[in-house]
Amino acid sequence: MFFASDNWAGAHPKISAALSAHATGFASPYGTSDIDHAVEERFKEIFERDLAVFFVATGTAANSLSLATVSRIGGVAFMHREAHMIEDECGAPEFLTGGARLRPVDGSLGRMTAENLERAISHFEPEAVHAGRPMAVSVTQATEVGTVYGLDDIETIAAVARKRNLPIHMDGARFANALIALDTTPAEMTWKRGIDIVSFGGTKNGCWCAEAVVLFDTSKAHEFGFLRKRSAQLFSKSRFIGAQFDAYFADDLWLETARHSNAMSARLADAIEASAKARLAWRPQVNEVFAILDSDMIRKATEAGAAFYPWNPPSWFAGPIAENETMCRFVTSYATTSEEVDRFGALIA
Amino acid sequence: MFFASDNWAGAHPKISAALSAHATGFASPYGTSDIDHAVEERFKEIFERDLAVFFVATGTAANSLSLATVSRIGGVAFMHREAHMIEDECGAPEFLTGGARLRPVDGSLGRMTAENLERAISHFEPEAVHAGRPMAVSVTQATEVGTVYGLDDIETIAAVARKRNLPIHMDGARFANALIALDTTPAEMTWKRGIDIVSFGGTKNGCWCAEAVVLFDTSKAHEFGFLRKRSAQLFSKSRFIGAQFDAYFADDLWLETARHSNAMSARLADAIEASAKARLAWRPQVNEVFAILDSDMIRKATEAGAAFYPWNPPSWFAGPIAENETMCRFVTSYATTSEEVDRFGALIA
Amino acid sequence: MFFASDNWAGAHPKISAALSAHATGFASPYGTSDIDHAVEERFKEIFERDLAVFFVATGTAANSLSLATVSRIGGVAFMHREAHMIEDECGAPEFLTGGARLRPVDGSLGRMTAENLERAISHFEPEAVHAGRPMAVSVTQATEVGTVYGLDDIETIAAVARKRNLPIHMDGARFANALIALDTTPAEMTWKRGIDIVSFGGTKNGCWCAEAVVLFDTSKAHEFGFLRKRSAQLFSKSRFIGAQFDAYFADDLWLETARHSNAMSARLADAIEASAKARLAWRPQVNEVFAILDSDMIRKATEAGAAFYPWNPPSWFAGPIAENETMCRFVTSYATTSEEVDRFGALIA
Amino acid sequence: MFFASDNWAGAHPKISAALSAHATGFASPYGTSDIDHAVEERFKEIFERDLAVFFVATGTAANSLSLATVSRIGGVAFMHREAHMIEDECGAPEFLTGGARLRPVDGSLGRMTAENLERAISHFEPEAVHAGRPMAVSVTQATEVGTVYGLDDIETIAAVARKRNLPIHMDGARFANALIALDTTPAEMTWKRGIDIVSFGGTKNGCWCAEAVVLFDTSKAHEFGFLRKRSAQLFSKSRFIGAQFDAYFADDLWLETARHSNAMSARLADAIEASAKARLAWRPQVNEVFAILDSDMIRKATEAGAAFYPWNPPSWFAGPIAENETMCRFVTSYATTSEEVDRFGALIA
Repeated sequence: MFFASDNWAGAHPKISAALSAHATGFASPYGTSDIDHAVEERFKEIFERDLAVFFVATGTAANSLSLATVSRIGGVAFMHREAHMIEDECGAPEFLTGGARLRPVDGSLGRMTAENLERAISHFEPEAVHAGRPMAVSVTQATEVGTVYGLDDIETIAAVARKRNLPIHMDGARFANALIALDTTPAEMTWKRGIDIVSFGGTKNGCWCAEAVVLFDTSKAHEFGFLRKRSAQLFSKSRFIGAQFDAYFADDLWLETARHSNAMSARLADAIEASAKARLAWRPQVNEVFAILDSDMIRKATEAGAAFYPWNPPSWFAGPIAENETMCRFVTSYATTSEEVDRFGALIA
Repeated sequence: MFFASDNWAGAHPKISAALSAHATGFASPYGTSDIDHAVEERFKEIFERDLAVFFVATGTAANSLSLATVSRIGGVAFMHREAHMIEDECGAPEFLTGGARLRPVDGSLGRMTAENLERAISHFEPEAVHAGRPMAVSVTQATEVGTVYGLDDIETIAAVARKRNLPIHMDGARFANALIALDTTPAEMTWKRGIDIVSFGGTKNGCWCAEAVVLFDTSKAHEFGFLRKRSAQLFSKSRFIGAQFDAYFADDLWLETARHSNAMSARLADAIEASAKARLAWRPQVNEVFAILDSDMIRKATEAGAAFYPWNPPSWFAGPIAENETMCRFVTSYATTSEEVDRFGALIA
Repeated sequence: MFFASDNWAGAHPKISAALSAHATGFASPYGTSDIDHAVEERFKEIFERDLAVFFVATGTAANSLSLATVSRIGGVAFMHREAHMIEDECGAPEFLTGGARLRPVDGSLGRMTAENLERAISHFEPEAVHAGRPMAVSVTQATEVGTVYGLDDIETIAAVARKRNLPIHMDGARFANALIALDTTPAEMTWKRGIDIVSFGGTKNGCWCAEAVVLFDTSKAHEFGFLRKRSAQLFSKSRFIGAQFDAYFADDLWLETARHSNAMSARLADAIEASAKARLAWRPQVNEVFAILDSDMIRKATEAGAAFYPWNPPSWFAGPIAENETMCRFVTSYATTSEEVDRFGALIA
Repeated sequence: MFFASDNWAGAHPKISAALSAHATGFASPYGTSDIDHAVEERFKEIFERDLAVFFVATGTAANSLSLATVSRIGGVAFMHREAHMIEDECGAPEFLTGGARLRPVDGSLGRMTAENLERAISHFEPEAVHAGRPMAVSVTQATEVGTVYGLDDIETIAAVARKRNLPIHMDGARFANALIALDTTPAEMTWKRGIDIVSFGGTKNGCWCAEAVVLFDTSKAHEFGFLRKRSAQLFSKSRFIGAQFDAYFADDLWLETARHSNAMSARLADAIEASAKARLAWRPQVNEVFAILDSDMIRKATEAGAAFYPWNPPSWFAGPIAENETMCRFVTSYATTSEEVDRFGALIA
């Protein structure tokens, strides 16, 4: 009953096998090998367009360098108040962009609204050196709270940015999970809705370490090469990332693992909805479930070996939480089994 | 005949096997899992003392964060003129330290001399805000040109730094190769000679991606945790690094692979010494051979499938190079075979 | 009727005279001349304790370097949501600290409350590398909206910081105005209430350019010297700042000019209170008046030559503002005359 | 006999008078007042072309922001080994550019040669992310050692940069002195020879604090506004800089003061050449004289009240210096009198 986080899982057997398969022979380093190129072509097929893709070490690196590539002196990036970049990256985006500021935008269920974004950006208009100036908008898809932006939501938000020529970034640490939730294609969820840059994460969905920055504007690729190296994010034996992505995409493994982890969360949510001792904080769309449990239940579940974390209720959460209750987060992964979920369900039944 | 670089090799079979072995089950992320802790204990045994170890993504990251952890406003770090940090890291050390400057120090065969270091540091004495101030010394062991500092060399250099209370870093991207060349222990080559921080590299010696910063001053560990995260270098599934180091150290695999690649370079050097069509630029001590070939020989070797790079002759190189000659670098690795070397030897015989 | 800002005024005649008086003769540069030292002694007398003082070019520099001197990797500084550093410094504090983040804290009338500060800081507890960590608290005295923190307010806020060993900075761009408003001493308003660092501003109160960082912890002085130089804030002919501060403090000129500008604002506030065509947004305590005027009144005043700016109503402002009304800011200075104020009063009567 | 530095002088009486004259009345801040605009027009006349000019606080700021405005990720700026930015600015250029590196170029008499520059730049060709990439060239005019680049020298150096589209900066901390030495015009010494950006210094030549960045490419002006503010270099009462430049240019005061200080150095150099107890290290062209004195002479001169500094002999200096001799620097200024110089001449006669 490991629901602590999707990064508590290891690597899918097919990912491991791919690493072993690519371990022999000589290949040119620093992103120039055959497998690197093949994976880039694969990304183009998946996104149905020309693009440039850069492997980096972590999701934080992908987000930070995505912003860095569109950074401006005095620049301000807009994102949801509880975005990972604001809450969980230790100032890396600010540092690696050379001083950009992140401006929180409100919205319920982890999604900023276009209206709030409009208001937040217009605070910096007309442009003046004192306040600084807007430089980018970032949406997290799926969000930090297990929900997703609808395709129309993305389009509406992108429109707010687009009318100021602001680039739009998508933090896709759980990209595949969002894709499954929306039953759509990578192209539809990104550039067809106005997204310019994607932090494309594979780690949480079954890889060891497979994070990439996808640039739809290939004119930024040359510059990005320097940016990645200067940020100490250029792997020498980059084929070890390439091999993971190769297996990740083969036979739609990535969709399969995401579909599975989403389904496990839905199953878990159902169990919680059916429980008298726990209740959903809100209905999940991807592989994170937020629920409210009382302290007895938490103790009992923990003693039974369930692993999950308490969670600070988001600013927009209006529901009542009693004195002896705590909001908790449960995350499922490719490695979560329905037996585990059912065992937890039985526990809280 | 792949002598382009040691990062053209993949991963040793035992490293791949370890990754597969550790791929299943749940483990806490961000450097807190059992394997992470076990590897840290292993480092303590190997270095025969207490220490703190932090995995990072690249050798450039290890070097940059090593300097960052001892960085001071206006600080200047001293290292050999051809050090990797100066020549090959795109300004990452300067950027990730928040502005430190790297000051080149001269010395032949890739080793800075204590006298030159003394002179370089004393340029900043007495301390004044205009010039800035010394903050660290870094030695590269093995050096960039296939040589090593002797234990006495390290001690003498460290003494120059020590009398000013300057911390001393060792760039150990090829740590194991140097260890074999000197037939010594990690403790003797580092802290017993005055080294405070080591960039400990496993990637070039048979891992996929296994780089770590070793801090002998454990009081810096807490701060380093923030530094690593803020630099986007904290892996979530860090056990995938832990697993590699675990296998790397098991049964002295790391010493075996380093011994092999050093031996392959020695064999290659012998072949070059015996050749009438090539000559050694200097005798290698580890797994890099520098030789001077004429253009006919280079063409012939290349056509025969040999891969190696031309190399700018270092500033201190005094030997003659004729108009039609080029200095070239040959790097061997754990994956280099004696058959390959002999085939190349036959080619230039 | 120039109420646009206190930096629209020039320099007090005594300041100009001092610059002329010190223009001749040779003096050592970079903060080492006799007048530099004399001014430092004067600061010690005024603050009734040992301290170190550093001249810098701008208030933004004073604030940014104040934070930089207590900066930590992953650090977060807490201040009122409308603090100058957050709203009007183009990211300079973030940039010059090498990546610190500024976290807004709420509170009405431009003053953050101790309760809100407590909550904001505790968000980062227990300390973890993901969120980063608290590094400092900053209070703006006088605030951005013409009010002041009471001495007890400062003490209560400082206590929240002190129990975590967080240093406390005071942005004193209008330090003298606050001092007059509270009828207290520099010592009482700062270190006796827990303040560690002061951005001490003279520019808005009658100098050309006289900003300083005052460090009560003199152990930070040596480091600050490098910080200032590295930030390009070390004046060569620093006696031109020294001469201004010398005249500023002589015969309590600074208190006289602050008393005057405060009085002019009070007079202006009285006139607005008495007016049927304008109303105070809140009662000012120092030299800034915020009032609500309708568009007719604004047009009329502007045509009559009055200069002032519209102002975005602060987040905490609850008062009604009609469709055709605008919040406006009026700033008085040492150079404002009662005739001017009365002329404006007549205009809106 | 104050020859310690030109920044030991105060402000020319006409500069002081201008500050007093502009001290009254209200003027818009942050570089937008009438005098700011008038001074910008004056710069255009002086340079005979369109341009943008930005006041900053220090020469270090002017240099650093000049580089920052052309900075690229992984960028390297080339300048003479003893350039002020390399030797005397505490890493400010590196810090304020967000990590640019400064690469020393050799050349005798403080002037880098085009050949050495060509070699230094070509080290980074072909472009690769490891080494980083050239981003700018900077010439110091007058140099740090009292010499000047001839107009042809500038043109030849600029051609090396131009063929790679690298922008060229001139550190003109002693711009006026160089102008007088070459008997030329600002236009001829700068953009007509290929210079793109000038750090235009007035402080050493009779102002209190008057440093500016002059951009011939006005398309960079908008960005520079943010850069200046973000670096905490935007003066609020900027007319106090404007007033100084206004007086500086009026009736060619700046040329008069520069001509005077150059003449004083020439007179001093003549006295040293005529002396048996001192000898010129090299003949000065502007207001800095470098001479070699023995310890008796230094003691005697110091006891007689002469102020000057010992100087580390530059790397390119080949002349003999005996055991008991020291190279010393003597700097003259607008405030140096011929009586002083003659008094020193008598001392060493």
